Amino acid sequence: MRDVHLGIIGLGNVGTGSLTILTENASQIAQKLGFRLVVSAVCSRTATSKTLPAGLDGALVTEDWRDVIAHPDVEIVAELIGGTTVAREVVEAAIAAGKSVVTANKELIALDGVALWRQAAAQGVLLAMEASVCGGIPVHGVLREGIAADRLEALYGILNGTSNYILSEIEQNNSEFNAVLAEAQRLGYAEADPTADIDGFDARSKLALLASLAFGVQLTPADIPTSGIRPITPVDFRYAAQVGCTIRLVCSAESTPEGLFAAVRPALIPKDAILASVRGAYNAVWARGAYGADTFYYGKGAGPNPTGVAVVSDLMRLARDLRSGAAGRVSPFGFTEPAPTRPRPIGEQQRAWYLRFRVHDRPGIIAALSAILAEHEISIDAVLQLPKEDWRNLPFVITVETTSGDRVARALEQMSGLDFMVEPPLALPLEPGL
Amino acid sequence: MRDVHLGIIGLGNVGTGSLTILTENASQIAQKLGFRLVVSAVCSRTATSKTLPAGLDGALVTEDWRDVIAHPDVEIVAELIGGTTVAREVVEAAIAAGKSVVTANKELIALDGVALWRQAAAQGVLLAMEASVCGGIPVHGVLREGIAADRLEALYGILNGTSNYILSEIEQNNSEFNAVLAEAQRLGYAEADPTADIDGFDARSKLALLASLAFGVQLTPADIPTSGIRPITPVDFRYAAQVGCTIRLVCSAESTPEGLFAAVRPALIPKDAILASVRGAYNAVWARGAYGADTFYYGKGAGPNPTGVAVVSDLMRLARDLRSGAAGRVSPFGFTEPAPTRPRPIGEQQRAWYLRFRVHDRPGIIAALSAILAEHEISIDAVLQLPKEDWRNLPFVITVETTSGDRVARALEQMSGLDFMVEPPLALPLEPGL
Repeated sequence: MRDVHLGIIGLGNVGTGSLTILTENASQIAQKLGFRLVVSAVCSRTATSKTLPAGLDGALVTEDWRDVIAHPDVEIVAELIGGTTVAREVVEAAIAAGKSVVTANKELIALDGVALWRQAAAQGVLLAMEASVCGGIPVHGVLREGIAADRLEALYGILNGTSNYILSEIEQNNSEFNAVLAEAQRLGYAEADPTADIDGFDARSKLALLASLAFGVQLTPADIPTSGIRPITPVDFRYAAQVGCTIRLVCSAESTPEGLFAAVRPALIPKDAILASVRGAYNAVWARGAYGADTFYYGKGAGPNPTGVAVVSDLMRLARDLRSGAAGRVSPFGFTEPAPTRPRPIGEQQRAWYLRFRVHDRPGIIAALSAILAEHEISIDAVLQLPKEDWRNLPFVITVETTSGDRVARALEQMSGLDFMVEPPLALPLEPGL
Repeated sequence: MRDVHLGIIGLGNVGTGSLTILTENASQIAQKLGFRLVVSAVCSRTATSKTLPAGLDGALVTEDWRDVIAHPDVEIVAELIGGTTVAREVVEAAIAAGKSVVTANKELIALDGVALWRQAAAQGVLLAMEASVCGGIPVHGVLREGIAADRLEALYGILNGTSNYILSEIEQNNSEFNAVLAEAQRLGYAEADPTADIDGFDARSKLALLASLAFGVQLTPADIPTSGIRPITPVDFRYAAQVGCTIRLVCSAESTPEGLFAAVRPALIPKDAILASVRGAYNAVWARGAYGADTFYYGKGAGPNPTGVAVVSDLMRLARDLRSGAAGRVSPFGFTEPAPTRPRPIGEQQRAWYLRFRVHDRPGIIAALSAILAEHEISIDAVLQLPKEDWRNLPFVITVETTSGDRVARALEQMSGLDFMVEPPLALPLEPGL
């Protein structure tokens, strides 16, 4: 069969990983496809034909991405520059020029993926985006085709490797958040500005995308309630262990008769749940279907080569589609018409809760707090008190039975005015059924 | 787009699960495809049009599978009867009649899948087989397309739910193998004749299939060295725990410069490896690629509905291929030319080993055994001895450093003639790198 020619735009980490695989692994790729993938054009601000890997001798090397799209041989363009301004121009120009597109761009797809796909469909070209979420785990393909017959009820993810690395370190070494973050930055696991990772915004874009594949919804990331891991302290892991749990930054999407609940937030999960075995800079997705029950997918969340595998596997898939004449074989979202959806207010969701207080110890604290909980019709499950350390800043925990987040928020609001409270209470949901 | 009409042959567990999903979940399936899947013919020895689920009123119900294949509307036939005689007739007849085929038949595909796929390709029809291995985990699609760009180096699987259930029970409850097996049979987790499950033959067929997708090889199941879980006793879990490990029936395939090693056997795996978190009747696959590093996939191994998800997801995939005009878009094995391959003799593979002895205790036993190990140039790592129970049948363990299985086998052969040996020694490899 005729070779398929590719254009690569962007030679950062992901572009470099993708080119490495396309050249080093070219012969096995051809054995799988029955034809070759040939890189015909590369756009980079820094590379020259001399700095590219061997096997790319004939490729056009340019600083202008328009040259890649205009290259007459190029049938599929890989957009690997990131961001949402130039990247959008690149994707739209490629589609307009009748080229299929593979992108690793989470933000762009989370914001405008459905619109871009409609442009592609109108032009009879293909759009693929496996690398945009959980680079190392082929979870798009799983949701889009692998378990397409199932009707998903819930999806849980650990979608940010930096946060998971930090939480794992706090848990294992009993270290404080700020110390672990500084060490992660020194090791290159966290960015100089860590906000997107540790405050949950990166995970939020990924959850929006996975929810579209899982439930056929089109979510705006900003509509997903999001909180990060800054308030988590070593003592929280010790208290969580007392109830058989650990703590992870959990991305959740749950389809209920009332609608879709979605959230990104630190949560307690049972230690013997398979999601709890995700440690360090790994990502994982756990899904529960009405028919297939629970399945679980795990791998590296990022890195040039794992993400490169996702990009090149997408290039192979689109090349197969093109050579077999299957334009528009499947929506990149699995569903033909993802429906714009606002998640239900997360405060309506029912959960058991872990409430951690820091107080200036004196008699009557439990009485005061339990009176407020009773007033809001919240049932106490357990009061947990580790051996005392500092009575002026004493952490202790109350776990409460299943109730709505709204009810808990109102009780905590009332509690935060109490004179013995050193800082506002921390409330973490206990994710059930994992 | 025009509906795709299906014929279902066989209404056992898998057929019933598939029909349930096709009827109950029909509207979401149509939302994903953009057209409907319509069951037009069903072959069953027992069903009548009155006992079928609602929504199948118009379907032909017949006891003769030839009627299903001959039905003029039917474009895809699902072969769900199992076995290798009639099932092969069904698949070959469907292909000859120009119908595409979905099968859940592990034995048939492991024996003759490549030949059947060549017949299908010659006829311009499609063949799909996701349900044949790990029904609940879409691992075929992952290996065939999801991580197709990677070059796999190793694949480990827990592929038999019955064995894993039995081992988990021995571990958790310190029960003897025979008692757990009897209980598993009572609960329906094990068959009256459990040989295929507990002696590793079921897992062996599955490993042969996964290896073809992972490495592009065509293995004959009988060529894969296989041993089962009958010799595993509660004390083995206690000794394994002393070196930070647990025991699972591990299916392994490893691509090395010397060739492909493949085996099904009980093995030690580190307790903190994610594969060790697979408990009960679940299946899992762990793969290591040259680029994507390690990924892991987990779910129910069997059951009408999980396997039904695999069958119906395959039906959806082939229906998409048919409607988009993509005949032969991708080999069901991922590689276009799986190469007939004999695995390397497993005795050449280098591993660290766990050697468990049962002896009639007397002075000089360690001296005798360590002399034999030294003679075979095998280095002892540790000698483990739990508190003694019965000195006439005393279990103890020697772990040895990495060496070939052949060398260990020769040493054990020599040891088994020693007068203090109550039964032949048990050797379990320690699987590295998980």
